Amino acid sequence: MKKLMALSTLLFAMTMYSQTDEENIKKIYSTSLTNGKSYEWLDYLSNNIGGRLSGSLNAERAVAWGKEELEKLGLDRVWLQPVMVPKWIRGAKEYAYYETDSGKTTTVNICALGGSIATNPLGVKANIVEVRDFEELKTLGKSKIEGKIVFYNRPMQADLISTFNAYGGCVNQRYSGAMEAAKYGAAGVIVRSMNLRLDDYPHTGSMSYGDLPNSQRIPSAAISTNDAEELSSMIKLDKNLKFYFKQNCKQLEEVLSYNVVGEITGSEFPKEYMIVGGHLDSWDLGDGSHDDGAGVVQSMDVLRLLKETGIKPKRSIRVVLFMNEENGLRGGNKYAEEAKKNNEKHVFALESDAGGFTPRGFSFDCSDANFNQILSWKPLFKPYLIHYFEKGGSGADVGPLKSDSNVLAGLRPDSQRYFDHHHASNDTFDAVNKRELELGAATMTALVYLFDKYGTNPIPNNKEIKD
Amino acid sequence: MKKLMALSTLLFAMTMYSQTDEENIKKIYSTSLTNGKSYEWLDYLSNNIGGRLSGSLNAERAVAWGKEELEKLGLDRVWLQPVMVPKWIRGAKEYAYYETDSGKTTTVNICALGGSIATNPLGVKANIVEVRDFEELKTLGKSKIEGKIVFYNRPMQADLISTFNAYGGCVNQRYSGAMEAAKYGAAGVIVRSMNLRLDDYPHTGSMSYGDLPNSQRIPSAAISTNDAEELSSMIKLDKNLKFYFKQNCKQLEEVLSYNVVGEITGSEFPKEYMIVGGHLDSWDLGDGSHDDGAGVVQSMDVLRLLKETGIKPKRSIRVVLFMNEENGLRGGNKYAEEAKKNNEKHVFALESDAGGFTPRGFSFDCSDANFNQILSWKPLFKPYLIHYFEKGGSGADVGPLKSDSNVLAGLRPDSQRYFDHHHASNDTFDAVNKRELELGAATMTALVYLFDKYGTNPIPNNKEIKD
Repeated sequence: MKKLMALSTLLFAMTMYSQTDEENIKKIYSTSLTNGKSYEWLDYLSNNIGGRLSGSLNAERAVAWGKEELEKLGLDRVWLQPVMVPKWIRGAKEYAYYETDSGKTTTVNICALGGSIATNPLGVKANIVEVRDFEELKTLGKSKIEGKIVFYNRPMQADLISTFNAYGGCVNQRYSGAMEAAKYGAAGVIVRSMNLRLDDYPHTGSMSYGDLPNSQRIPSAAISTNDAEELSSMIKLDKNLKFYFKQNCKQLEEVLSYNVVGEITGSEFPKEYMIVGGHLDSWDLGDGSHDDGAGVVQSMDVLRLLKETGIKPKRSIRVVLFMNEENGLRGGNKYAEEAKKNNEKHVFALESDAGGFTPRGFSFDCSDANFNQILSWKPLFKPYLIHYFEKGGSGADVGPLKSDSNVLAGLRPDSQRYFDHHHASNDTFDAVNKRELELGAATMTALVYLFDKYGTNPIPNNKEIKD
Repeated sequence: MKKLMALSTLLFAMTMYSQTDEENIKKIYSTSLTNGKSYEWLDYLSNNIGGRLSGSLNAERAVAWGKEELEKLGLDRVWLQPVMVPKWIRGAKEYAYYETDSGKTTTVNICALGGSIATNPLGVKANIVEVRDFEELKTLGKSKIEGKIVFYNRPMQADLISTFNAYGGCVNQRYSGAMEAAKYGAAGVIVRSMNLRLDDYPHTGSMSYGDLPNSQRIPSAAISTNDAEELSSMIKLDKNLKFYFKQNCKQLEEVLSYNVVGEITGSEFPKEYMIVGGHLDSWDLGDGSHDDGAGVVQSMDVLRLLKETGIKPKRSIRVVLFMNEENGLRGGNKYAEEAKKNNEKHVFALESDAGGFTPRGFSFDCSDANFNQILSWKPLFKPYLIHYFEKGGSGADVGPLKSDSNVLAGLRPDSQRYFDHHHASNDTFDAVNKRELELGAATMTALVYLFDKYGTNPIPNNKEIKD
């Protein structure tokens, strides 16, 4: 039986990829590691432009830069896709302290959450109540919450291997914490930063008031994990502990911005579109190197690496630098809307938005039959230590392109260090390793190459796939 | 055929591990990530002791600390194993510059290679000749080399995925460069640092003069990659370029040092030994956090994690903190020598000496049949993204324990950042991520747990293993 099995696997494998594919993929990796452009691009985007929140001048500088760099690549088309984006500004640096019964104050590190309102100009000062979740908030009820500052302090779960799962288990405190606490008459909200490490950086991120009328909205801010720990222990010691914070952030009118799109038009199937992208906007505290400068420059390099290695795509391949992933997803939605309007068939979309760390593989949003095709390529990636091929989510910006037949994918880099930097002032260029970034760009290019060459060809489940 | 196949795989798999194993391994990872000790230990070893070259006072402080910490764990035995080690000292900080025809000097960053002799007290100044390898040195010959300083400038190959392979392709310049150049009458040797990144850190490491008589030995030093690039371009512009360097390092008499050993005595097979270890010594420039503080604290935590998770080993499990891996391997050789003398049967040995980065798997030095047993455990590691199980080397310190029937293994963490820090002053605690370190300790513990439970049971090749 064993011999027969080996033979059938071999025959089958031969229909899945060829030696040329092995050679081309090797060339892609070598080119990225010896003649990649992603790191140089990231250096510019991070150090010459910097943080680029939607609606900011820096975001517009990033748009202009992205377009200019893509034009230099000699693509078939480069254009800007207009999209209206929210504009939220942080204003002056936030200030906060806790105050004991004896009147002693200790300053702590906070930052306003994206979308939050300001405190009143003199700040908010009130007793502080610590909770772990909305359940506990509900149990305490209006009598214990009203007029107080609510402190959400549920830490990210350290024993989850994927830090994104740990993030998923906590982020509702940040996103909906103010909305929930406002229901019980809280005066403000302080949220433990979404960070697995104990350090002094507050991590911002989006929050929402949902349908709450303006009059009921309360300010919310993130506190560093070190200060969250300290604050928590002080609350235990001093039941009457007071907390003060001041921030003057503001939501302004929407403004015009752009997705940046570049295209290599397909030689055989120009009407079949494949895209690769990351988001050009970032939060304002750091320079957005990991989130998502890395995804931007890797995506740009995919098209450049195809050209450099002499691969002429059969299908039209686009790089999309999405605007406003962080606080609105307007760019991702706009791109999908335009694609639909223009009747563009998107067969494949790949997003990189999980940091510029060593790539481990991809997560795929597709049918089982499409996934079987992908699994058949797994051996091609083994020399590059790319082993993670799982069904799951893809990415926020490519998600709106979902159809019954297409394949959406997300690059999955090693996630251990991501939340050390995510949305904080230490998301900076020096935290990105050149080789890790380049390996990611190569891994993305290899997958794009395979989908371009073979198209999305579902393999029925009854065929044998060597996993 | 498919159904039969699936059935046979299932039956076979059931003999390989149980649900209890899945649960125990989960417990091991959770404990390491929520209640690990490796990071706290590394903080002390790196920041309170620091660099600990064999024969130094710091190395002896590390020995005392290691013994004390192991004693606190309540192991069955903790002891020191005496071993004589070489003692080389760097002396005053090195100084170097290049000098153009016009007399203009530019200082560069160098460090003496471990084991090198000093320059004369006033330093060496001579014309400099760049070569890529020993072949080129031979081609140039005595007429072009004599009296000059030889500059080895072959970079690590960036397109190799394993940076250890890139290191392997270059390190002969460092190890044997002086010995080879001395044959042609060179006055000294400068070697490009073993570093894939362009930066200002010179990287030290061991070198050897082989059998060269003392009178023919010449000083050798490493130069930072940035300075190597600059020096190379200056040599191209100025054929008469001179180089100056001064170092006053010295080889002293051997001194007494120790391996530190701790043991949990096996409950069923106390005479079957399994060891896990890293090396306690480090180079002197940084604090040796990645090389190999990480391996030391992970190995210590393996025994502690077994105890914490309530696993009582059947076999005797030892942690060995080896002395003098960097410039002599005396500790590894001594441990094997004693094991042989005492007739101790070592069935398994695992080394961690490749940095405290996210673990990817292991490399195994064992028979095919033993390797089959290991492959049968692969699914147990999948939830932890441990995917790399390959035959290959193990580690320098456990290598001398090799027998026909045992299994030697080396932890294989992600290698991309390792040579950014290796043997340089930036191999420091802040470059180690807590979770990455803890995942490594857990991964090692899981493998030790499996080998302890099942022993080394070779699986003949004619059985089917699901890889």
